[in-house]
Order: sequence, then structure tokens, then C-alpha cells
Amino acid sequence: MCRWLAYSGSPVLIQELLYRPKHSLIVQSLHSQLGAEETNGDGFGVGWYGAQPMPAVFRSIEPAWNDRNLREIAGHITSGLVFAHIRASTGSPVQQTNCHPFRHDRWLWMHNGLIHDLLKLKRDLVLAIDPALYPAIEGTTDSEIIFHLALTFGLEDDPPTAVARAIGLIEDVGHRHGVEYPMQGTIATTNGESLWAFRYSSEHNSRSLFFSTDVRLLREQHPEIEILQLVSDETRLVVSEPLGDLAGAWNEVPESSYGVVQPGQDDLRPFTPRAPSHPH
Amino acid sequence: MCRWLAYSGSPVLIQELLYRPKHSLIVQSLHSQLGAEETNGDGFGVGWYGAQPMPAVFRSIEPAWNDRNLREIAGHITSGLVFAHIRASTGSPVQQTNCHPFRHDRWLWMHNGLIHDLLKLKRDLVLAIDPALYPAIEGTTDSEIIFHLALTFGLEDDPPTAVARAIGLIEDVGHRHGVEYPMQGTIATTNGESLWAFRYSSEHNSRSLFFSTDVRLLREQHPEIEILQLVSDETRLVVSEPLGDLAGAWNEVPESSYGVVQPGQDDLRPFTPRAPSHPH
Amino acid sequence: MCRWLAYSGSPVLIQELLYRPKHSLIVQSLHSQLGAEETNGDGFGVGWYGAQPMPAVFRSIEPAWNDRNLREIAGHITSGLVFAHIRASTGSPVQQTNCHPFRHDRWLWMHNGLIHDLLKLKRDLVLAIDPALYPAIEGTTDSEIIFHLALTFGLEDDPPTAVARAIGLIEDVGHRHGVEYPMQGTIATTNGESLWAFRYSSEHNSRSLFFSTDVRLLREQHPEIEILQLVSDETRLVVSEPLGDLAGAWNEVPESSYGVVQPGQDDLRPFTPRAPSHPH
Amino acid sequence: MCRWLAYSGSPVLIQELLYRPKHSLIVQSLHSQLGAEETNGDGFGVGWYGAQPMPAVFRSIEPAWNDRNLREIAGHITSGLVFAHIRASTGSPVQQTNCHPFRHDRWLWMHNGLIHDLLKLKRDLVLAIDPALYPAIEGTTDSEIIFHLALTFGLEDDPPTAVARAIGLIEDVGHRHGVEYPMQGTIATTNGESLWAFRYSSEHNSRSLFFSTDVRLLREQHPEIEILQLVSDETRLVVSEPLGDLAGAWNEVPESSYGVVQPGQDDLRPFTPRAPSHPH
Repeated sequence: MCRWLAYSGSPVLIQELLYRPKHSLIVQSLHSQLGAEETNGDGFGVGWYGAQPMPAVFRSIEPAWNDRNLREIAGHITSGLVFAHIRASTGSPVQQTNCHPFRHDRWLWMHNGLIHDLLKLKRDLVLAIDPALYPAIEGTTDSEIIFHLALTFGLEDDPPTAVARAIGLIEDVGHRHGVEYPMQGTIATTNGESLWAFRYSSEHNSRSLFFSTDVRLLREQHPEIEILQLVSDETRLVVSEPLGDLAGAWNEVPESSYGVVQPGQDDLRPFTPRAPSHPH
Repeated sequence: MCRWLAYSGSPVLIQELLYRPKHSLIVQSLHSQLGAEETNGDGFGVGWYGAQPMPAVFRSIEPAWNDRNLREIAGHITSGLVFAHIRASTGSPVQQTNCHPFRHDRWLWMHNGLIHDLLKLKRDLVLAIDPALYPAIEGTTDSEIIFHLALTFGLEDDPPTAVARAIGLIEDVGHRHGVEYPMQGTIATTNGESLWAFRYSSEHNSRSLFFSTDVRLLREQHPEIEILQLVSDETRLVVSEPLGDLAGAWNEVPESSYGVVQPGQDDLRPFTPRAPSHPH
Repeated sequence: MCRWLAYSGSPVLIQELLYRPKHSLIVQSLHSQLGAEETNGDGFGVGWYGAQPMPAVFRSIEPAWNDRNLREIAGHITSGLVFAHIRASTGSPVQQTNCHPFRHDRWLWMHNGLIHDLLKLKRDLVLAIDPALYPAIEGTTDSEIIFHLALTFGLEDDPPTAVARAIGLIEDVGHRHGVEYPMQGTIATTNGESLWAFRYSSEHNSRSLFFSTDVRLLREQHPEIEILQLVSDETRLVVSEPLGDLAGAWNEVPESSYGVVQPGQDDLRPFTPRAPSHPH
Repeated sequence: MCRWLAYSGSPVLIQELLYRPKHSLIVQSLHSQLGAEETNGDGFGVGWYGAQPMPAVFRSIEPAWNDRNLREIAGHITSGLVFAHIRASTGSPVQQTNCHPFRHDRWLWMHNGLIHDLLKLKRDLVLAIDPALYPAIEGTTDSEIIFHLALTFGLEDDPPTAVARAIGLIEDVGHRHGVEYPMQGTIATTNGESLWAFRYSSEHNSRSLFFSTDVRLLREQHPEIEILQLVSDETRLVVSEPLGDLAGAWNEVPESSYGVVQPGQDDLRPFTPRAPSHPH
């Protein structure tokens, strides 16, 4: 089971997100509290948006907790939109091309969970990917396949529908192969402006997902916390597990839901996979 | 352009093969003399047969010339059938799963060359792989795809025919996508008993391939060379480039040919790809 | 806190030692039960004796649990004297030259523990190392310094005395720098024939150390366990934490003691550091 | 023989320095033209100054030419003072702590060359390092020792004198051990504001060093080159080998000299090591 963090808001030094909170993502990589696997030592990745239109992605197969390059980068790069992910492999090799976040053009994608019985379903799923996108697959994870299915189904135009169709296909292919609960997990994706986070599993018992309370509310409740005075009203964190222990700071995303962090009002809605309209 | 070496014969310390000859494979990894790329620093691998039925494979993404673990292993492991490969990537990521030799059950496979315009052809080639074998593909190289095509076409029963059908398919798919010369390279494969080496390219201008002269002949010509007294009559090396400079030691495999190193008389024959019998 | 295992006895496939027991060293690398640090993901090493006089050493900075090369080597190499170590860094960089076991000529050395306030003491300790040995230090760990101190004090002639003098010096240097309890840990060393294991800490509260019960006794108690019929009478394991849960199999080495596993009768004796005879 | 590049001037994307010129540092890492070793595949490092007072350092043991993280960082980070170094090991292990640039507080340091017979001289040199600095040495290179000697002799106050005393000591220690020409190489160091570059070898036959022509002059000679219109008058590159082939762009630093790139007029002066005043 992996861990991830998505940040959107006032530009911050990345180290503030990864190392500062008491139960930071890096500390979580050594000792998980909620997770299925206790240790997340099978690589990590950080993606961020800066002055370029394309996001940067730094990925490594070393455990995050002792990686010096991660510490250097986190200590020197400031960004207003950051994805970070630490990996516990569910079987696929520990290699950079299997580390999240994945990137396509301006988009980033990361996932905590798995496709059950992936090896049974993999060929059919890969066949459903747009042939023009197929050669861009570089690794061997289920997560990268889900990403490319979502791209195939229009992620860049309508993320919630594209993800619903991707997961609908996975469930359809899974059921036809006798896999009862094919999909499990939480997903985050962004185009550099808005950020979508999904919580869904076929068995309706999904891995955890939390979003941070509106900064305006937190400021009222915790006037003594300086950082809350400094960040913009729209600053938001979405995380696989809560960071720190600030009372009232974290809200669980309900089962089978998705949220949108965007300029203006954020949004939280139910999520239902969309089965293929015609027999596959 | 990669380099490779295949050894079959009296058990030797692997370091005798990799480090001892004057133009050893490790020295070649730094400075190639015949090759297209000058440096082979994008990972390496060694496969060998020992007491177990399955061969061992050690692969690393570090340059071979300074890899201490390779030196340790080579200095302590003795084997009578060894494959060694050093890689210069033609585009696919530098990761262990892209390092040769590849293994399937008792079989090893390595390749020096490429499929031209791989990204155009990749999906069609992967579709032609036996769905039962498909999930075993772990990397993203052309070489691993050729291996799985050959397995699909019966490598374990009749290697020359299986390789002829695999390359025939690659040429067929290539031509249908407008690629004039799809296939380039030399290939070695073994089941732990016999060893097959192929030299072929669609343009009939293939990368080099050499085999060592019969030990009985070499002994007569070079009675002063002690090692020749020690190894068995059937000891044979097949290499992408000659090692050392012993006069009369190396013979070029002719264009569009393959050789078999096996118990009893070795063999050298012409090689012709076999096009798919029905339109693909 | 690291973990380690030392095996002396009938030749076995290394994987039998590392992967087979229920609480194997590899499983322990993910979830420690007795240790100070919960995860040992900062590199590992295996040393073994084979046909060569010098032992082989394979070391890697990747976590042991997912290292494919370790699995390959362990599955193909048989040895009658094996050292294995998994590391949780107490501060020094994660790099191969900081992984145990360390080697000097025919000797191997590994350590679980630390020198407290190493950076305060390091220069004085390094100055006490034989200048002829000094250039052989390649890493930056306390463990390698203790090894070279022991070599300086005659490890190759009389291991218990050399280790007593090395630790005596460390305590002396520590006390002069105001470090109350300079030394902590367990140490294993071997010349390929005998094996010495030490348990000592300045505060007399040392990390754990266990040795396996005499095989003859275990056979009587567990006639149903086949492996016990197969290994020689003199087979012995020394481990930082018990492996498996065979009743009666493990015995704790008492505080401030050392054991010798050797041809003939093994031995267990008290251990006392020997302070430098003259003020340093 | 390593390669290095030091840039001071208008903020640029790091990729403009590393990948853009025709004979860029990355291309040089594969095929050197002037160097002693042909391939620089034993790790690399980049240091840069940004919004923080301390510079960032990114170092890796993979060959630079295929390192994806280097490409990402170089494509997203803009800096006005950049050090980059690619390494060909002269014996010490390939590990991050042996990669340049080295850092101490606000200072960066890199070196192309070697101390001859390092293992003979190492202990005496390390003894001459300020004991307070000694524990900060993390690797095993000659270059890091020279850096810490220079720090010991006042690098932070007067770089030319400190480097003269460091090299003077190395020559003195070397001569006392019978090493005729102890020092070889070029060195760059910076505090984030000024940049010093040294060319010196005991045999007065030093590795090459070049600095770029004054931007005002280059603009007049090449009015068609747009980038020259964009960068500030004070922009300067110092490199171990010329990049690109712009006529008049590169000037060799004379044997036994050093240059200073600083706000205002740059400077070029003779360099003479300063022997220890008292017998060591």
C-alpha cells in the first residue's frame, strides 16, 4: 500500500509538505499507521509545477527516508501544486518507471491501491488503450495502465467521466475473468490548475482518503497557528493518511466519492464507474 | 549497440571470461572498437547455469566496468555455460528489467541490435505474443519482445524455426507500417545444454558475430598456451566482437546465418526469416 | 539497528538461511520485533566462502526485501560459512562501502550497534589504526573503524584479545571525550574456519544475540524435522534475533560474553574490554 | 579524468548549460575529446544557488547521459550560479559521497585531476585537516581532502591563499613520501557570489581549463547570436573543455594560474603553491 499527498495553494518549499508535519509523508514511509503494508520503501516520486508548462517529475527507487537528493530538491524548490508518492510494491519491479506520479503532457497521476489479479486482466486492459498512447507506457504497474485508460477515455476533457469509464472497463474485464472485486484504491490527477481525487473500490471498502479543512475555518479555530495566516484561502491538501494532529484539520472523503480542488469553490461528489455501453 | 559473449565448455571462473582477455567484455564496455555506439554504460547482465535446473541471472543498471558486485560474483562462481551482456540503450529506460540476458524457465536470451521504429510496431508485435506469455514481459525493450515472440513460435522445441518465424513476423509487421528494414542484430539463446547464435538483419548488413576456432585446432597451432591444454575439446565462445588477439582464434559468422554449439559436432547454417503464412 | 546472521556448518543454499525460516532475515528487514529501529531498509550484504581462499562479498544499497539479485545469488550459491547483514543506518550515508560484512584478506566482520557520539571520537579512533591499514578504510561507519582497530590489535592472531583491546580503546577515547557509554553492539567475525561472536555494551545492556542449540540435541527433541537429519553435528547459527519458532532451538548469549564456533567443541566465555595499558 | 563547468551570470535554465551546446557536458560524458579517460560514467553532480542561502546539490552514481532525474531538474530549475561535474573515477568507489561538487556551508568545490599516490599520502593529509572539520568528510576522494585542507587554511576568508597553502602542503607531504609530482588538476570553488578557478599541477603540465570571452566582446563579434543579447555583461563560463564551437568564445587559462569571476572586473593571476613555513 502506497501513500500519497497532493497540495494545491500558495507556493511552498516542498520540504514543508514532505518533512515538516509530525506524521509527514517521509515518516509514514518508515512506519505506516493505517496502511496494509507497514513499510513504503519501494521507491518514491515527486511531481511539481513551476515556470514551465510541463510539470517536473523526480523519481527514485531508493527508500524516501534516506534519499539525499529528495531532501535537496525539497529544500530548494517552491511550488503551488505538488504531488508526492511513496511506494510499497504489490509485485511489480522496483524501478523508476514504476514510480508515481506518472506524467502525460501537462497531466500528473498517482494511485494507492491495485487491480486485483492484474496479470489475468492486463492484456485485455492494455488492448483497450488507444494505440497512439500505447507506446508511451514505460513501466509495468496497474496504476500506469489505469492512467492510460483514463487518457483513452478523455481524461484531458472530462476527468470524472474518463476515470468512471476507465474503472468501469476494469470492472467489466475483471468480472469476465472471474475477478469479483477488480478495482481498489484512491487516485489523484491534475492538469496543473485543478486537482481531482477519487476514492473507490469494487468492494466498497476503499483505502483511506482525506482532505484538509477550508483554510478560512481553520484560521478561526486556530488563530495561534502562523502558517494559516500566510497561506491563501484556497490552499488545500488531499492525502492518503492525515498528516499532523491539528484538531479539525482533516475530513475523510466518503466511500465512492471524488473531490475537485479548483479555482473558486471546491467540490465533493459521488463516484460511480461507468460500464462499457457495448459488450467489450 | 550492445556487446555480448556466450561461453559453453569446461567450467571456468566467470572472471576468466569477463576480465582476463586483453579486449575483454568489460574493457569493451568502456571503449568499443567495432561498435556503433562507443560506450556501453547502460547496464549489464550475466546469466549462468550451476547446480540448479534454472539458470541464475544477475543484472545491474550501473556501468559494468566499476561494478564491484559483478567482480565479486565473477571471481567466485564457476560455470560451464555463461551468457554476459553489456548494454548501450537505444532509447528504452536504463532499468534492470531491460538488461539482458532475459530468462524464461530454463532458457536465456540476449540480443545486440534493435527493431527499427519499435514504437510504431510495438503494439502489433505484443499482440502476436501468446496471451499466456504476455504477463511475463517485465521490461520495455525490443529484445524482450523478440524473445517472447520466439517463445510463442516454439523456441523450446525448435529454436531455429521459432526465431525464423519471430523475425519473419517482425519484418511482416514492419513492412505493413512502412519500415523498410525492421530487424537488426545478433541473438544468442540457450536451454543450458545447447546454444544457438543468430546473425541477421533485414538489410543484410548485420552487426558482427564471431565464434572461436575448434580447441583441437588451436592447441596444435598454439602448443605454448596452457589454457588450451586444460579446456575440453568442445569448449566454444560466441561473441559480438573478438576477445584477445590470438591468431586464428576467431571466425566471423557469415551474414544471415546461425550456429549451434551442442554436445557432439557443432553446426553452422544459413538463416532465413519465415514470413507468416497467412496475412497477419 | 541492524540485523545479522552467521552460519557455519554443512554447505547450504544461501536462500535456505535468508528466505526460508518463518521470521527470516529478509522478513525481519521489513518488520523487526526486537529491534530499536523498525525497518532495516538501508542496504544489506552477504559474505560467503567457496572454492577461493578469499570470501566473496555482495553488498547493495537497495532494501533487501525486494532485491532481485540477492534472490538470484541466494538461490544459486551453496556455502558452509555465510555472513548476512541488513542495515538500518544510524546516520552514515547509505552506500555500498558502508554495508556489512566488511572484508580484510580472509576475514569478514559485521556489527549491530554503534559507537555513541562517533563524530566526537572518530578522529582519535582513526589515528589509532595502523597507518598501513588506514588507506583500506573505504566507508564512513563506526563498524568499519572497530574492524580496523581490531585488525590493528591482532585480530588475525587472537580475535578475543584484539576485540577486547579495540573496545577498550573505544571506551578510553570515549571517556576522555565525556561519552559515558561509548560502545554498543554485537559483532561477528570469521577467518573462514572459526567464527567469533561478541555481545557487549559499555552500559551492560547490549543488543540481543542468540546461538542455535547443538544439532545432536535438537535431533533428539525434534526427530520429525528432516533438515536436522541432514546437517552435520557441528552446524551452528548465530543471529541477532531468533529465526523461526522451533522450541528449544535458540539460546541467548549472556551479556558481556563471546562465543567461538570452531572445529571440535564450541566455546562460550565472558568478555571484558582491555583498556590501553598506557594513557593514550 | 573528470569534466566540469562553472557558470556565473544571468539566471538560466540549467539544461541550457548541460544539454544545449553542441559539445555539451553531457555529450562529453560519453565521448571526451581532450581528456585522459575517454568515458565519464562514474557519477555526476550539479550544485546551484537559488532562493536559499545554502546551495542545493544533486548527485548521482548513474552515468549522466541517461539520467532522467538530471534531465528533469535541469529542465525546471533556473539559477545564476551553477556548478556541474561528471566523474571518471581514478580508483575510489562510485558512490554519491564521492561525487562533486562538495559543499561546506555556503561553499561549493569541484576538481578535475588527482593526488598521485593518494593512498601513501592520505593519512598525513587527513591529519592536517582541522579536527573540527574532519568529521564532515563523507567520501574517500582526494578532491574532498583538498577541499577540507583549503577550508582548514582559510578558504572562506582568502581562497587563493588557502588553496596555495593546501596544495603546498600536498606537495610537501608528497615529496617527503617520494612522490615527485603530487598534485594535478583544475579546481573551481564559489561562495555563491564570486567564483575562483585554479589550474595547477606539480609537473606544470596541467589538465585544461578555459573561460568564456567577455560577453560585450562576443556580442560585437557575433551580433546574430540572440542569446548574447539576452545575458548580462558579467555572464561567464569556466570549463574543463570548450563547449560548442563559437569562434573566439574560449580562452585557455595559462598553466599555473587562477581566475576570479566576481561582481565588477574579473581577474586572472599566476598561482604558486605555498609550502608549509615550518617542517611539517
